Amino acid sequence: MADGLKFSRRLRRTPYTACAESAGVSSFSVVNHMLLPTGYGRSVEDDYWHLREHVQIWDVACQRQVQITGPDAARLVQWMIPRDLSSIKAGDCLYTPVTDESGGLLNDPILLKLGEDRFWLSVADSDLLLFAKGLALGRGFDVAVSEPDVSPLAVQGPKAEDLLSKVFGNHIRKIKYFKFGWIEIAGTQQLIARSGYSRQDGFEIYLNGGHLGATLWDTIWEAGQPYNIAPGYPNLIDRIEGGLLSYGNEMSRETNPFEVGLGKFCNLNDAFEYLGRDALQNLSVNGLERQIRGILFDGGPCPACTEAWPVKSGDLQIGQVTSAIWSPRLQRNVGLSLIDRGFWEVGQPVIVKSKDGVPRLGEVSALPFS
Amino acid sequence: MADGLKFSRRLRRTPYTACAESAGVSSFSVVNHMLLPTGYGRSVEDDYWHLREHVQIWDVACQRQVQITGPDAARLVQWMIPRDLSSIKAGDCLYTPVTDESGGLLNDPILLKLGEDRFWLSVADSDLLLFAKGLALGRGFDVAVSEPDVSPLAVQGPKAEDLLSKVFGNHIRKIKYFKFGWIEIAGTQQLIARSGYSRQDGFEIYLNGGHLGATLWDTIWEAGQPYNIAPGYPNLIDRIEGGLLSYGNEMSRETNPFEVGLGKFCNLNDAFEYLGRDALQNLSVNGLERQIRGILFDGGPCPACTEAWPVKSGDLQIGQVTSAIWSPRLQRNVGLSLIDRGFWEVGQPVIVKSKDGVPRLGEVSALPFS
Repeated sequence: MADGLKFSRRLRRTPYTACAESAGVSSFSVVNHMLLPTGYGRSVEDDYWHLREHVQIWDVACQRQVQITGPDAARLVQWMIPRDLSSIKAGDCLYTPVTDESGGLLNDPILLKLGEDRFWLSVADSDLLLFAKGLALGRGFDVAVSEPDVSPLAVQGPKAEDLLSKVFGNHIRKIKYFKFGWIEIAGTQQLIARSGYSRQDGFEIYLNGGHLGATLWDTIWEAGQPYNIAPGYPNLIDRIEGGLLSYGNEMSRETNPFEVGLGKFCNLNDAFEYLGRDALQNLSVNGLERQIRGILFDGGPCPACTEAWPVKSGDLQIGQVTSAIWSPRLQRNVGLSLIDRGFWEVGQPVIVKSKDGVPRLGEVSALPFS
Repeated sequence: MADGLKFSRRLRRTPYTACAESAGVSSFSVVNHMLLPTGYGRSVEDDYWHLREHVQIWDVACQRQVQITGPDAARLVQWMIPRDLSSIKAGDCLYTPVTDESGGLLNDPILLKLGEDRFWLSVADSDLLLFAKGLALGRGFDVAVSEPDVSPLAVQGPKAEDLLSKVFGNHIRKIKYFKFGWIEIAGTQQLIARSGYSRQDGFEIYLNGGHLGATLWDTIWEAGQPYNIAPGYPNLIDRIEGGLLSYGNEMSRETNPFEVGLGKFCNLNDAFEYLGRDALQNLSVNGLERQIRGILFDGGPCPACTEAWPVKSGDLQIGQVTSAIWSPRLQRNVGLSLIDRGFWEVGQPVIVKSKDGVPRLGEVSALPFS
C-alpha cells in the first residue's frame, strides 16, 4: 500500500515539528488538522520496549485545547458532559465522554479546570470547538470559545518523573494522576499534568506559546541523555495492551459511552441535567447490543489494521476488530473489538478475518490485557 | 523531510481507495478524517498537462456531506450562511462561506438543495456537522443532522462531458455549471453536478451507497480508455493558477470572507438575518487590512510550501504565501497570499522568503493568474 503523505499548510506543523525532524521522524499521522509524529525509523516494537524501560518525548501538540471562558463557561461545559463538573476543583483534570442528543460520542477529551470560569477541553480527533461554538451561539451563552496557542508535549515512561523533577524541580513529584501543577519555562509559568496516552506513567506539558517549543524540547532532550531518552509517540502496542481507546478507531458518533466502557462516567440521575442525559438514560435501560472487548489471536504478526476486520463465531459475524497489533510481550496479536451481546465472556472462541485473508483463531479477552 | 503516512482506521478509507491503490496511488492527504489521494507516481506537472487535455477520475469522497433535513432545515441552513437561500431551487448548488459570530470562516462548502426540507453541505476540511448540530441543539430546531453514505467521485477535464454522456446518457450535457441532475448506476438514481475543484470543466457524482464505489470507478475507467483517462486529484498547479482557495491553507477562523474575495457572497442587508451578519456588516464598514492576491515569483521551482513564507516589500513584511508551486505554463512560481493594505496593486514588487532561504523576487498579480 502506498504510504506517502503529501504535506500542505492545511496539515499544520507544530512548535515541535522541526525538533522531531532533527530527531529523525519517519512518519506522521494527522489529528485535528495537525501533524502527529508516529515513527522515528525504528520498529514500534523497539519503541515499545524502550517506553516501558526509559523515557520518551512525544510531540502531541495535536491534542488541541478548546478553551471556554466567560460568565457562562461552567454552564456550557456542564451541558456538554455527563460527569458532574461541581466534583472537581481548579487544578484537576477529568476524562469525559462528550455525546450528542442521541448519546453518540463526539469526542473523549480531558477537561482541565483552570478557574471557575475558564476550562480547556484537550480534544481527540474531532472539531469539538465547532460543537461548543454552535451550542453557545444557539443558546445565547455568554462565553468565548477559542483554540489558544497551547501545544502539549508529553514525557512518558518510568523515568519521566526523575527526569522532569531534575529539570523543573521536585514539586512535580507531588502531582498526582490527573492533577496538574505549574513549572517555569524561559520565565513563563506553564501547566504540567500527570497524564498521557500510555500506561507507563508520565507528564504532559501544556506549553502556552509556540515560540518556546524548541527551547522546551531541547531542554528536556539534553537533560534526558543520562536517562536514555528517545523520541516517541503514542505506541500502538502499549495502547492496545492497556485498553486505551482511540476516537476515530474504537469510537465514533455511531458508538455510545456504554458500549466502550465509559458508562461509569455518565451520571444518569434525573436531577442532573446535560445535553445527552435522556438518550443515555434510555440506552442504559434498553441494554447493550455490543460492548468493547479485547481479542487475543494467533497466526503470527498481523498486518496493519486499516479497515475493520470481521470477528466471527463460526459463520456468524459478532464484531469488528478496530485496532490490532502483535504483542511481543504476550507473543500473540492483541486487538480491540465491539462484540455482540451473547459473546462477551472471556475465553469465547473467535475467528478474526484479517486483511491478508488468513482466518486467525483467537478468543475474547478482558481489558486491559494482562 | 520525512513523508511517511501511518495508516489507521481513524484515517478513513473511501469506497474508491482500493481502486486508487490498483491505479497506483503513491501519496495521500487527509481531509475530514478521510484519505484523499494526492499522487499516482507521476509529477504534479505531468498530471497538470494531462488534466488540461484529457480527463481524470478523482477520489474526492473526503468532500463529506452534512445532511440537514426536517421541518426547520431551511431555517438552520439560512442561519448558517450569508447568501439568500430563497434564491435557489431544488436542483441548484450554491458555493457559500460559513462564518461564526465574528465573521471568521468555519468552512466554504457547496450547498446542494435536494428539496424544501433537505440540504447537503459538501464540506471542506472542518467538522461543520458538529457546528450545525450545536446550533440546532442550542436553538431547539427540529432537524436531523447527519453524514450520509455519500462519496463524491469527480471526473474532471475537457473530455469529461463526452465520456460521461457516453456512459450515462446525453442528458448530462444539459446540466449547467453548479446545477445538478440524476444518472442511473446499477439500478440506483445518483446525483451528478457540474462542478469540481479544477478550472477544466467536469462533473462530480455524489455516489449514495459506498458498496457501489468499485462499480462506478470501474465503469468510468473502462469507458474512459478511448479518452486517455488517468487517475488524478485536485491539482495544485491548476488550483493556484485558477485562484481556487483552500480551507486550511488560505482560509481559517482567523480569516473573514472579505479578505479572501468572498465578500460578494455576503448579503449585508439589514432586513436579511443570519448568524454572522452584524460582524460582517462591521467588517465591511471598517475596511480591509489585508486581502488575497496572487504572487508571481522567480528563482526557479520553489520547494513545497508547508509553512507560511514571509512576503516582503523591502524590509517590511506585507504578507505570507500560503500555497505556492512552479507553473510550467507561466514558467514562474505562482503563489497565494493575504497582502496588507497599501500593497495590493498588480505589479507591486515583492520578495518571497521561501523555505530554502533564497530571497525570490516577484510581484503582486491578479487572480486568477492569466
